[in-house]
Amino acid sequence: MDEFYLIEKIKKIIKRRPRALVRGIGDDCAVVSPPQNRKILVSSDSLAEGVHFDFRYTSAECLGRKAAAINISDIYAMGGIPLYMILNIGISLNRGAFDTEKMIRAFSRYSEKHGACLIGGDTVRAKSFFLSVTVIGEAKTEHLMTRFGAKPGDRLFVTGFPGESGAGFYALRNPKKCRGIKSSEALKKRHLEPDLDPVKSRVLARGGVVSSCLDVSDGLVSDAGRIARESSCGICIEYEKLPVSGKLRDFSRKIKKDPREFVLYGGEDYELLFTAAEESAGETVRYCAKRGVRVSDIGFVTGRSGICIEKNSKKEKVDDSKVWKHF
Amino acid sequence: MDEFYLIEKIKKIIKRRPRALVRGIGDDCAVVSPPQNRKILVSSDSLAEGVHFDFRYTSAECLGRKAAAINISDIYAMGGIPLYMILNIGISLNRGAFDTEKMIRAFSRYSEKHGACLIGGDTVRAKSFFLSVTVIGEAKTEHLMTRFGAKPGDRLFVTGFPGESGAGFYALRNPKKCRGIKSSEALKKRHLEPDLDPVKSRVLARGGVVSSCLDVSDGLVSDAGRIARESSCGICIEYEKLPVSGKLRDFSRKIKKDPREFVLYGGEDYELLFTAAEESAGETVRYCAKRGVRVSDIGFVTGRSGICIEKNSKKEKVDDSKVWKHF
Repeated sequence: MDEFYLIEKIKKIIKRRPRALVRGIGDDCAVVSPPQNRKILVSSDSLAEGVHFDFRYTSAECLGRKAAAINISDIYAMGGIPLYMILNIGISLNRGAFDTEKMIRAFSRYSEKHGACLIGGDTVRAKSFFLSVTVIGEAKTEHLMTRFGAKPGDRLFVTGFPGESGAGFYALRNPKKCRGIKSSEALKKRHLEPDLDPVKSRVLARGGVVSSCLDVSDGLVSDAGRIARESSCGICIEYEKLPVSGKLRDFSRKIKKDPREFVLYGGEDYELLFTAAEESAGETVRYCAKRGVRVSDIGFVTGRSGICIEKNSKKEKVDDSKVWKHF
Repeated sequence: MDEFYLIEKIKKIIKRRPRALVRGIGDDCAVVSPPQNRKILVSSDSLAEGVHFDFRYTSAECLGRKAAAINISDIYAMGGIPLYMILNIGISLNRGAFDTEKMIRAFSRYSEKHGACLIGGDTVRAKSFFLSVTVIGEAKTEHLMTRFGAKPGDRLFVTGFPGESGAGFYALRNPKKCRGIKSSEALKKRHLEPDLDPVKSRVLARGGVVSSCLDVSDGLVSDAGRIARESSCGICIEYEKLPVSGKLRDFSRKIKKDPREFVLYGGEDYELLFTAAEESAGETVRYCAKRGVRVSDIGFVTGRSGICIEKNSKKEKVDDSKVWKHF
């Protein structure tokens, strides 16, 4: 496969060509017209073979789709909409059978589903396979949700059911132990093919009560740590209030694990974790529910730094090593 | 080293904070205000260990600086100026001694030298080391230089002295053969620490005669192939007109190689390769020279596809396998 062939293929894969795109794939840069009366959002994430995905259970399609989803999720977490995607691929020489075209197609399709268009990138050889994605989006200034506005006394919320993806990952890594557990299939799918609901972000961004927000990618505890750090405060998670889905409950019972461990430390949920002032807490839950977005009130913001978990009316501080990613 | 430590370090490394930057490192996305009356340029490049660089002769500083330079070069090649840099790092576990901080510092310094600011990115673990950089810039519409405007009859030009970087790379890979050759030191430096001159791009973009342009990254022949393909034409390079610097001439004589092979196939020069109408050819060279930019008239655009080299009044077509990058 040569570069020329691949570029021509990619050009054909792309269906949607936004009007603001002046020049797409094929030049030194992609050229776009700037959005009017909007802020520009930029985010970037990398996925490396053997660290973020395993080709034993990740297909080319799943990988492409997931690479798009986790990046678009960052735009939604800020209250924006995605516009342009840039995809860099490091193709390892020992991965001849891997279908790069299928991966790019899945990446492009999923991006287009969310209104974004693949406009550029780079394909290189590498010793081990990696993907780096940059997404560019836009948001109205008044819709921006950042990580730095949480205040002591605010309540902590999360959308949907975090923990399912983490449980699915566990099932993928422990196939013998999980054989025959019916609920594990849906959980695995949740891990391999995360699906984003733009409505969650839109409802929160327009609701006007969110004081801080991010998407849960590394686990509830880690990501609460990020809000705490950026907002110079602490966060207390109330263990008994954590939402546990029926599937996760069933799965956890069968493998004899506490489902809430998946909720706290699982990661890759791409649900939104956010804070809002205590006085608007009840209203926030009702407002979201009315618009089809399930949110759970799971804790509160404190004046002391760090993350703690309140369980059986006892508070316990989470060790920093469980909060921050290590290299 | 944990994530928190690294993010705090990076925040301190960044000296320049442009006014248009609403939110930098620390959130799901960086947030910027869109430029007014300008187009936005976006480009992305990846570098993989063992393919694009070798830690045996590439220091952390050189790598950081080069990663910034090759991306900024794409912005200059379109006639724009760089504004924002996004840096993704895949850190391999077996590279404990590598100084990530030094690399980021060099990346940030070089970007700032060219007016651009590091605003975000991602740091992940990986099986082998890689960098993916995205650069966002801006250009006035009338200054845009693309790859698709070359017309049969146009002349082909190149700035400076391509081939020096390729010769430096040869010297790095063949230390025994090149020991004692004085000129090799400057050539090696040219390869390891490419330096960009924004004046070249500015002069060409404002001159108003350029019909197509790109930066020479994969070699003169490869990159002429890109102009030819995007402009649906062919290009003929006149061998005898290729510029050869004194250093390259000296080095090539000592290793008994044709210096023009480095000029044609070396790569990583980051000089600008461009076309202009024949009637403005002489004027183009004089206009550039007056502004301190050396350009050489090295060939012409043809109506037939592909790249050919004219040597001793004989034209020979270059095989496509020498033009396109293979994976």
